[in-house]
Amino acid sequence: MTNRRVLLKNRPVGEPKPTDFEVVESPVPTPKDGEILVRTVWLSLDPYMRGRMNDVKSYTAPVELGQPMVGGTVGEVVESRDAAFRPGDFVLSYGGWQAYHVAKSGGARVGPFGPLKLDPKAAPISTALGILGMPGMTAYVGLYDIGQPKPGETVVVSAAAGAVGSVVGQLAKIRGCRTVGIASSREKCEHVLKDLDFDACVSYRVPELGTVLRDACPNGIDVYFDNVGGDVLKAVLKNVNPFARIPLCGIISQYNATEMPPGPNLAPVLVNRVTIRGFIVSDHADRMPQFLADCSRWLREGKLKYREDIVEGLEKAPEAFIGLLRGRNLGKMLVKVGEDRTRR
Amino acid sequence: MTNRRVLLKNRPVGEPKPTDFEVVESPVPTPKDGEILVRTVWLSLDPYMRGRMNDVKSYTAPVELGQPMVGGTVGEVVESRDAAFRPGDFVLSYGGWQAYHVAKSGGARVGPFGPLKLDPKAAPISTALGILGMPGMTAYVGLYDIGQPKPGETVVVSAAAGAVGSVVGQLAKIRGCRTVGIASSREKCEHVLKDLDFDACVSYRVPELGTVLRDACPNGIDVYFDNVGGDVLKAVLKNVNPFARIPLCGIISQYNATEMPPGPNLAPVLVNRVTIRGFIVSDHADRMPQFLADCSRWLREGKLKYREDIVEGLEKAPEAFIGLLRGRNLGKMLVKVGEDRTRR
Repeated sequence: MTNRRVLLKNRPVGEPKPTDFEVVESPVPTPKDGEILVRTVWLSLDPYMRGRMNDVKSYTAPVELGQPMVGGTVGEVVESRDAAFRPGDFVLSYGGWQAYHVAKSGGARVGPFGPLKLDPKAAPISTALGILGMPGMTAYVGLYDIGQPKPGETVVVSAAAGAVGSVVGQLAKIRGCRTVGIASSREKCEHVLKDLDFDACVSYRVPELGTVLRDACPNGIDVYFDNVGGDVLKAVLKNVNPFARIPLCGIISQYNATEMPPGPNLAPVLVNRVTIRGFIVSDHADRMPQFLADCSRWLREGKLKYREDIVEGLEKAPEAFIGLLRGRNLGKMLVKVGEDRTRR
Repeated sequence: MTNRRVLLKNRPVGEPKPTDFEVVESPVPTPKDGEILVRTVWLSLDPYMRGRMNDVKSYTAPVELGQPMVGGTVGEVVESRDAAFRPGDFVLSYGGWQAYHVAKSGGARVGPFGPLKLDPKAAPISTALGILGMPGMTAYVGLYDIGQPKPGETVVVSAAAGAVGSVVGQLAKIRGCRTVGIASSREKCEHVLKDLDFDACVSYRVPELGTVLRDACPNGIDVYFDNVGGDVLKAVLKNVNPFARIPLCGIISQYNATEMPPGPNLAPVLVNRVTIRGFIVSDHADRMPQFLADCSRWLREGKLKYREDIVEGLEKAPEAFIGLLRGRNLGKMLVKVGEDRTRR
């Protein structure tokens, strides 16, 4: 058996290039006592990975050059030296951009990634990387705990067709809020409106986003779940209500920037007594059980929907990731690394 | 008897000019039933007044052209048609830039300003405009309620020698924090260090404020009480600790701006899970009793000190206000409008 791995070859300057990555073959690793060998089925691609490619201090260490890119994975246990797992079990783990990896219970975790056994009958295993995984929990914690929307308030979310934004809007609807998405394309807005039941969706590619948002939010904005920063945040700040809350989840608009662009003028934050709060889902692991209970139920009841944007083959991961940062995906970006025996 | 008043003649463009104001004489007003006539002794000058000169929607209405500038005052009751006040009583009210005014119990208030009877034996009456008034309460609410510093944490405050900043630093010391001020001049830093017992004070007029702050805050910054915004906020964000809190109290650096300058890049807010929260003291009137109890006691015990920067004569108010926005004052900026019979 041969492993395939996508290594970080160069630290990207600006937008990552395919040549910043290298696909290599290597022997499949051997699990030690207490470890399991996992064959990756699904690899999650998420915008935060861009930060891991930089050699800068952040909330976690960067990926080392010559090492595989990190990432959440769903896979099948091939060999187990841990009594809690058996070959054929499906697990959520943090296997990275590779076809096989070893995982260890109680080992290093990032965010809600365990090596965690999944029940394929409860939900499609790929949802553990999306609506029932880190992106879903990011939406849940960021909206409910940080944003604290009240019924009747207006919630705006950027990157509304993405893995996090699509859940934010639906959770806001469940809370009884007016829900307005911001996305790049007409296709995404249509999906958000028709499939996900948002009340409105606007493209940020307009000359006067502030005015467009004002029309879409006649009662102003009470919660803005920010995935992108930049000009969209500025336009939102022109329309915030007193005591608005802005959970700051991501700044996708500048992840490829080589110099840090300026941010928004904060006068509206002062005048309207706004709270801007950065958060990272891994700080909120205690909310995992409640998140899973709520969102699993809402998924079964049809109150939560999701879409997956799937590319086939590990070697496509770099290209798909570059597209993700360009906003090309519609729904949760996944790489199908190996056969999913649960989907027939 | 003749009243003197300073009217807003023009809406200033950029920095206010003396010609934006007009000093006029008019008859002294006559109190109606339930009203009192007050002779102004002390007029408070505060940076927020710059916003009132603009014709823009904010948390309160702008001053109308041809009307006297608003402002907190301490004065002496001359005539009373309210059984709660007698001639000779000293009161805190919101009399504006004029020598006489009528005030009414239960009438319009801005922030913690009442028509409120003062006890000249308890504290100098001018402190009702400073350390025991709106600026002191702004420091108290902003630091303790919004900033929530814990003993041992590092608290940084800008405009550290001003009416609010000087109290913030001393309240942080009382809480057991390392306290670092930011001010413009060496004279101010010396005052803050020697008289107010801050642990460190740096000038923002240095090429690399971020580096200077790092040296002054070897354990990073946990709370930044922001009075100024702009480049100082940017430098602070380079040094914030995880879960830092930034009460946003003012943005003095841009109060005279004709176009809104960009703000800070918010990447450090995300990475460090920082909370930025704008606040306005008038939203927190319920904290007034506790603020007064605590700060009056600390003032008596010598744990709180204050300095007043006094100009004599109502007609000097415009010039003094222009100087305030330039940072020329050291301590609480007051205009002595009339004789203070309690100071002999």
